[in-house]
Amino acid sequence: MTRFSFVSVTFLALAALFFPALATAASASSEKDAIAALIERERKAFEAHDLDGVMSCYAPGDQLFVFDLVPPREYPSWDAYKKDWRELFAQFPGPIHNTISEVSIAVDGSTAYSHYVEDGTMTAKDGTASEIAVRITDVYRKIGGKWLIVLEHVSVPVDLTTGKPDLLSKP
Amino acid sequence: MTRFSFVSVTFLALAALFFPALATAASASSEKDAIAALIERERKAFEAHDLDGVMSCYAPGDQLFVFDLVPPREYPSWDAYKKDWRELFAQFPGPIHNTISEVSIAVDGSTAYSHYVEDGTMTAKDGTASEIAVRITDVYRKIGGKWLIVLEHVSVPVDLTTGKPDLLSKP
Repeated sequence: MTRFSFVSVTFLALAALFFPALATAASASSEKDAIAALIERERKAFEAHDLDGVMSCYAPGDQLFVFDLVPPREYPSWDAYKKDWRELFAQFPGPIHNTISEVSIAVDGSTAYSHYVEDGTMTAKDGTASEIAVRITDVYRKIGGKWLIVLEHVSVPVDLTTGKPDLLSKP
Repeated sequence: MTRFSFVSVTFLALAALFFPALATAASASSEKDAIAALIERERKAFEAHDLDGVMSCYAPGDQLFVFDLVPPREYPSWDAYKKDWRELFAQFPGPIHNTISEVSIAVDGSTAYSHYVEDGTMTAKDGTASEIAVRITDVYRKIGGKWLIVLEHVSVPVDLTTGKPDLLSKP
């Protein structure tokens, strides 16, 4: 340990002792980073058709509940959602490219939540590529020291006057 | 206070002292009741076309963020969402009847979240009634001692093979 880092550590320890809010803010920031990393890990697993990688982001058993983009109404467990993801990958075996934007993350103790937009281009069996921008909200719980998604909602807005979904919605 | 209730209160106070988990469980249960009451209050305000009543359930300013059923993609503030609700009430000035089902609520400290289904029949200007079952997820924060919605997501699933929204989705 260099003298500089020793002084820094001592200063931070003293600062945390006398200004607990500082320590809390620093900790909340690193928890936000952990959630951001989880979102990015899932995005990459999605692009790689990595079913296990995607599912490692979700809480096990019936600790997970999902309202997904596609019917049926709900996916009330990890197993149900895994089946949904498996079908998506089977439907789009070709290249997938996703970008994530408008990310907002909030952390409160061992619960966190986020909203963001995922704009994806997926390639069907016949080579046809289709683009869709979905809106995602997630709630996370820290379970066994790891952040996992416990509640997910994925959708596109629907224009009720035309009866049509807006697959490429704009802010 | 009767002797029985005095004994009960003393027992509960002692129990809470020696078994803090008991007190936490009781408190979490009453917080869940408060969230359930908020959902019911909003349902009634919705049926009554009571715009202020509905909006009193949401966090002020840009503490609120919503992905709603209808375009555009997002409603990033209380003012934006109020405009959305005003337009809904203008579009459906006749009788509204809503039922809420499949409610699940979780509370962790000063953050809570829920998911439920709202099945509504709304009546347009020309007297036409239309039914729609929407999926709702909410995140709440306790702000100034009151639970308020800070993140809402409302949607119906969309069948991507037919391109049609499922307005009466089933579990």
